[in-house]
Amino acid sequence: MICEIVAVGTELLLGQIVDTNSSWLGEQLALSGIDNLRQVKVGDNHGRIVAALREALERSDAVIVCGGLGPTQDDITREAIAAVLGVPLVADEAVAARIAAMFEARGRRMPANNLRQAEVPEGAMAIADPQPGTAPGLLCPVGPAGPDQKVIYAVPGVPYEMQAIVLGAVLPDLRRRSGDTSVILSRTLRTWGESESGLAERLADRIEELDRTGRATIAFLASGIEGLKVRLTVKAPDAATAREVLAAEEAELRALLGPLVFGVDADNMETVVAAQLEARGLTIALAESLTGGLMASRLTDVSGVSGVFVGGLVAYDSQVKFDLLDVPEGPVVSKPTAEAMAAGVRRLLGADVGLAVTGVAGPAEQDGLPAGTVFVGLAVGDDDPVSVELRLPGDRRRIREFTAIGALDLLRRRLLDRTADR
Amino acid sequence: MICEIVAVGTELLLGQIVDTNSSWLGEQLALSGIDNLRQVKVGDNHGRIVAALREALERSDAVIVCGGLGPTQDDITREAIAAVLGVPLVADEAVAARIAAMFEARGRRMPANNLRQAEVPEGAMAIADPQPGTAPGLLCPVGPAGPDQKVIYAVPGVPYEMQAIVLGAVLPDLRRRSGDTSVILSRTLRTWGESESGLAERLADRIEELDRTGRATIAFLASGIEGLKVRLTVKAPDAATAREVLAAEEAELRALLGPLVFGVDADNMETVVAAQLEARGLTIALAESLTGGLMASRLTDVSGVSGVFVGGLVAYDSQVKFDLLDVPEGPVVSKPTAEAMAAGVRRLLGADVGLAVTGVAGPAEQDGLPAGTVFVGLAVGDDDPVSVELRLPGDRRRIREFTAIGALDLLRRRLLDRTADR
Repeated sequence: MICEIVAVGTELLLGQIVDTNSSWLGEQLALSGIDNLRQVKVGDNHGRIVAALREALERSDAVIVCGGLGPTQDDITREAIAAVLGVPLVADEAVAARIAAMFEARGRRMPANNLRQAEVPEGAMAIADPQPGTAPGLLCPVGPAGPDQKVIYAVPGVPYEMQAIVLGAVLPDLRRRSGDTSVILSRTLRTWGESESGLAERLADRIEELDRTGRATIAFLASGIEGLKVRLTVKAPDAATAREVLAAEEAELRALLGPLVFGVDADNMETVVAAQLEARGLTIALAESLTGGLMASRLTDVSGVSGVFVGGLVAYDSQVKFDLLDVPEGPVVSKPTAEAMAAGVRRLLGADVGLAVTGVAGPAEQDGLPAGTVFVGLAVGDDDPVSVELRLPGDRRRIREFTAIGALDLLRRRLLDRTADR
Repeated sequence: MICEIVAVGTELLLGQIVDTNSSWLGEQLALSGIDNLRQVKVGDNHGRIVAALREALERSDAVIVCGGLGPTQDDITREAIAAVLGVPLVADEAVAARIAAMFEARGRRMPANNLRQAEVPEGAMAIADPQPGTAPGLLCPVGPAGPDQKVIYAVPGVPYEMQAIVLGAVLPDLRRRSGDTSVILSRTLRTWGESESGLAERLADRIEELDRTGRATIAFLASGIEGLKVRLTVKAPDAATAREVLAAEEAELRALLGPLVFGVDADNMETVVAAQLEARGLTIALAESLTGGLMASRLTDVSGVSGVFVGGLVAYDSQVKFDLLDVPEGPVVSKPTAEAMAAGVRRLLGADVGLAVTGVAGPAEQDGLPAGTVFVGLAVGDDDPVSVELRLPGDRRRIREFTAIGALDLLRRRLLDRTADR
């Protein structure tokens, strides 16, 4: 089963919007075991959309066309599909009624243009309008029913509407047409602290075993500065088996990777740390120098974090460290300073845990230390504070971001160890 | 002059990397007055790269193929171009020597694979290797010299290498081939505080005038949460005239938009505010509640900000506001609290200016106030602190980000006014 993607929109060609929809669609098709060999972007031009659809249909079994379904005169995907199929557009009364009802419910007059969204190429059907009144997706069979029938799916360009329609209707229909009744499940382990080649080495035997048995596949995905993802994908005859194999394989990977794994799927470092603190009934305060509030802003991005996060001090100027955190006067990029900051902010703000960073973000060196020299201090309860030195690569922004996530990771591992100690 | 873009890489189709290169290229082509009507992504497959290049050449005068020039076996763009041109690959001795010299200078053994990067399709030439030892771009004429000659440019997939080659060699060659000797210059005004329709209304007469005279063009570009960009583009017979028209038109726009314009081109709100403070010899301290360090982290993203930024307090827990900032006990989302926080943090950290925010990030309401209710407090020197209420739309993340940039904008306008007062 081969499916191509055609993204429609002049703004995509002009670079005013980056086409993230096609990337998301490509990933979803791969996860569903459907080959996607080509993706095309064309502008809001009837002839060029028609040409792109015709060429894509020649090469493949299915085409997903994304964008151009809105109510304005620019939105001509419906007309282009009708031209490709050689059929007229006809009104879908059910869709028209839903759009009219939506405007009535909001007490607004419906512009006549909006009824264009209820038109469908003859023989096509509206699928899964996730929100009342928004453009539905279209499922447009090409040719007579049977094993040689091809299909064009039209989905809106608004990402969350597109995703809802693709997950709810397009992928299930594609899988059904492909004759593949198996169930595909995947889970992503988030890791921090090891390179891709390091992870590959740890998992080499397991990957070889899975290659041999075909029980599951493992893929490494970079996710920018946020560590590496290890994605486990399982294909099984039914959902129960798929879930069972996935759970067993996840356990195998976790045994091999240990504390390198900090979370799964939608977790990130700050949601994991916030949950750890909450589970242990601990509150935290942060003292930041080079990260300048980045750690605090990440942590407070977590909804409901006010139960564990007391506050933070951005001690950018050295004098602030001396005056408010009782750091001894002297060069401030050092282990003793990181420890004093951690203990100091814990006291100042009245928290159970103090986490602190000091270092050189660059571009210039400081006190003879090169950019990327960072010390992380941690004070938990009345224990003596501890600290760790990091040597980080990259430019100013990268060093700051690595420091923030690295410091949170240090806290995460310390909290894991404390649980293990008991 | 029509130019298509072919992006090569299986990882692009799988959604492991979002193809931002094509977006950037599309924008650059538009700015250079060259039509780009189609962009295609294909995987690392010889037959499919060849097919995509042949089709693109049929429809257009030029093709930029991006990616697949590296040293590994996956990188087969060179071979695909040679197949399209019907010529063999030949070694470019100058490129080979530069690659070998780079490895020697670093004291590393050169893997034999790397010499593949010195191969070029016969008749093509290596262009502009921006860094010694990296893959050069390729300029591959298609057919005999003359007005009907077409061209394929190959550029690497690494964004900064690609951009250097395109700006340095590809765009100038395209402009030369198009026979267009005019000079195109553009400048982007960054604005904050007005909607796209509001900006369009203010500039309506000017846009009409420019449409009539063709002296310049104006485009509105959304830039996510960072306000709207107004891009002015001028095409003139020579550089001096282009610069002159651009400066005159920029002055016209600034007169119409006034303080809505906060910067140009690569400026952002924090670089502008940091420069304003520095020019006035003022230092600043921040007190943040709902933004939780976001404002401080933005400001400290500016290299060299330590001359003006003293530090900040993330007063997330109400008790921190009462204890350290002398905020009167009571509900903390209010104008008096914002003012007390601004004055308090200025005193606590010893700065000239105190800027503070308190509000409801959501998702839940707080003290009967809905998510998006925000108060910004500002204390400058010994003046009485002032405050402003904002009502912001969106989810938690959006409210936090709007608050951070909105508060910095408030400070920017206040500093402008103070200068005007003198």
